Amino acid sequence: MKAVELNKDNWESLLQRPTKSVEDIEQTVNQIFKEVRVGGDAIINKYTHTFDKVELQTLEVSSNEIENAEKLVSKELKDAIQDAKRNIETFHTAQKTDKVEVETVEGVLCWQEKRAIQKVGLYIPGGTAPLFSTVLMLAVPAKIAGCKEIVLCSPPDGEGKINPVILYTASLVGVTKIFKVGGIQAIAGLTFGTERIPKVSKIFGPGNQYVTVAKQLSTKFGVAIDMPAGPSELLVIADDSADAAFVASDLLSQAEHGEDSQVVLVSDSLDLFSKVEIEIEKQLAKLPRKEIVIKALENTKSVLIKNEDEVISFVNDYAPEHLIIVTKNDGFFIDQIVNAGSVFIGKYTPESAGDYASGTNHTLPTNGFAKAYSGVNLDSFTKSITFQKITKKGIQNIGKTIELMAEAEGLQAHKNAVTLRLKEIDNV
Amino acid sequence: MKAVELNKDNWESLLQRPTKSVEDIEQTVNQIFKEVRVGGDAIINKYTHTFDKVELQTLEVSSNEIENAEKLVSKELKDAIQDAKRNIETFHTAQKTDKVEVETVEGVLCWQEKRAIQKVGLYIPGGTAPLFSTVLMLAVPAKIAGCKEIVLCSPPDGEGKINPVILYTASLVGVTKIFKVGGIQAIAGLTFGTERIPKVSKIFGPGNQYVTVAKQLSTKFGVAIDMPAGPSELLVIADDSADAAFVASDLLSQAEHGEDSQVVLVSDSLDLFSKVEIEIEKQLAKLPRKEIVIKALENTKSVLIKNEDEVISFVNDYAPEHLIIVTKNDGFFIDQIVNAGSVFIGKYTPESAGDYASGTNHTLPTNGFAKAYSGVNLDSFTKSITFQKITKKGIQNIGKTIELMAEAEGLQAHKNAVTLRLKEIDNV
Repeated sequence: MKAVELNKDNWESLLQRPTKSVEDIEQTVNQIFKEVRVGGDAIINKYTHTFDKVELQTLEVSSNEIENAEKLVSKELKDAIQDAKRNIETFHTAQKTDKVEVETVEGVLCWQEKRAIQKVGLYIPGGTAPLFSTVLMLAVPAKIAGCKEIVLCSPPDGEGKINPVILYTASLVGVTKIFKVGGIQAIAGLTFGTERIPKVSKIFGPGNQYVTVAKQLSTKFGVAIDMPAGPSELLVIADDSADAAFVASDLLSQAEHGEDSQVVLVSDSLDLFSKVEIEIEKQLAKLPRKEIVIKALENTKSVLIKNEDEVISFVNDYAPEHLIIVTKNDGFFIDQIVNAGSVFIGKYTPESAGDYASGTNHTLPTNGFAKAYSGVNLDSFTKSITFQKITKKGIQNIGKTIELMAEAEGLQAHKNAVTLRLKEIDNV
Repeated sequence: MKAVELNKDNWESLLQRPTKSVEDIEQTVNQIFKEVRVGGDAIINKYTHTFDKVELQTLEVSSNEIENAEKLVSKELKDAIQDAKRNIETFHTAQKTDKVEVETVEGVLCWQEKRAIQKVGLYIPGGTAPLFSTVLMLAVPAKIAGCKEIVLCSPPDGEGKINPVILYTASLVGVTKIFKVGGIQAIAGLTFGTERIPKVSKIFGPGNQYVTVAKQLSTKFGVAIDMPAGPSELLVIADDSADAAFVASDLLSQAEHGEDSQVVLVSDSLDLFSKVEIEIEKQLAKLPRKEIVIKALENTKSVLIKNEDEVISFVNDYAPEHLIIVTKNDGFFIDQIVNAGSVFIGKYTPESAGDYASGTNHTLPTNGFAKAYSGVNLDSFTKSITFQKITKKGIQNIGKTIELMAEAEGLQAHKNAVTLRLKEIDNV
């Protein structure tokens, strides 16, 4: 954990993420999209066989399977999931907004209302660890927003099953349909619709680089996506008031996500870097995902920055997905941070709290995307519609302005729509 | 204007838009992006020469040019622009939201705050008509949101100039930099940054199919965009209480946007269709953009639907950019509409009011994208960041839940970050 002091020359390179090029897999993704668009479920089955090595009787998970899954999850874990669900509900329900209504000029009433996206697709990756927490993070706000159809896709395992904890959680939060389909073919199915899989308007959820490229491609067909994805990352701002063991545990929990995860420690204290390094060594030894963590730690950056203004300007330029602040001057950083996904403040606020149970969402912009993207929140499942109702008085008030502007833009019919109305009012 | 009665068989075809395939221009866009990324302003200049047939001394508009432009705009038009600006400001300022703060469990404080996207790019097309109204629609909310850098790009005319009304409006609303650059090369410049053009985090604005494909490509490089674009469209729901002349004027004002514009009239009254047809003939004769209008009217759809529930279900499936409602039962449609960009209600509310001066935004989702996308609004220029601060009591309250869930997901280091803290608290 040798700290590098930030300077003009290393600034840009310290902002870099360990991302890969995806050019080479675009062709595969394009091909599968083309086939699914025409061939529907038969093609989905073909690729499930190819990639997941399994032959499925039916794509959709039955109510029987869900009931069985419920029996396989321990009471203890069910309680924990319900506990987390409650907190996520509380925080996302609080994000509801009222209609915004303004009479901009007398007789010109304008308002903005949010309406739910009717059909959404949630992608939950497979693999060794069942990401049931992501089911909570996506389906709970979808439900609160009022989405009518909430379709979940997740790849089947070698026995043609989806992990019972995922099924239990999906059923608990009111997912309307669950399909055993993963990867590119899942995203293609949600994009075009098949005999069984509904076409959706927006696709959410994490995934490997194939899923990421597939989601990107789906936008070309008019489907919206939550955000572009990249490897997970954490930046910690800590000074010598921070507990080195806690900082180390947070860096390690980020590092265990995957070999391409990135952790960055920014501090003005050389002493802290040394202490954290010792703690990492100590804690690392006991971790089951040690190999992954060691690989990920190769991407670690330890950045020495003496000046607080420079810290915040570097961190805003990096735009971390997760940001932990443990300093004597937290308030300054909270006020000044403009680019981050989710911010964790103080000694007793580990990132894992937000990953699971505090109530905030864990689907967040990586790779610097926090400069323009929000993490998933209630609004991710709605869109704003504007409404306006104008009275006689209203069109008299703004009519001339519209006529002048329309004429100057060379749009005579736009002007005429107003002129006709003004004349009618004058003639009455 | 022969009305077609809606039925199961024609439903899908009535939803279709007259859109073109863009596959053939993707290669050009890719090529220019590659070149601009490496070659910067020299390449920008090369393509400006190729496409706009002009050799520029400097890319950036000088303060001198802006001052001169101001002198070229009539007092009357300036007043109209200021009037519209005021209303747009009023409506978009009302969209500001407070921080959402909740203690989800005792000791677990979560909040959500919006922070401005720091650098945004606005694209304003060139051509015969100067779209200064779009400058208002994009730059006014950007300013209210607090964007630090608001960069405007618009192609130069044959004399190397940007229309003075665009320059006047841009300066009035506080655009920070204006560049004479259009098309693919403008979007590439904003995506990668050049010697002169700043790299931005989000790009807004309309454009032809080259600009549209370029904006789509920019998302692959982590730049966000306002929404995918398509030809403009209007759907009118009217019954026999509607004024046929007004309905015709609204359909015509939509049709004059371009040959690929689409207008749809939905009604339960055959009589209204005939009257509107007569009015269109009458009004059309006087329009300067008659040729464009006639072409666009070939895409007109007149859809007879008797049942109100079926009307709303068809309209929600079509998801119109602009929706005008003039019926005896407006309230029903207002309540039931879930997919639309902007809704205009009643006799005295022409679409052109929202295009220019009522205060609502005119940058709206076309091509059915209203199913998932909002029109541009204040939030388009911000992103939500979540924050959390947990006390000793708080981590004791949710600690066990996190430990259980992390363990079940196979993420031991996530669990450990909590366990360490709980132990420390127990030991004190």
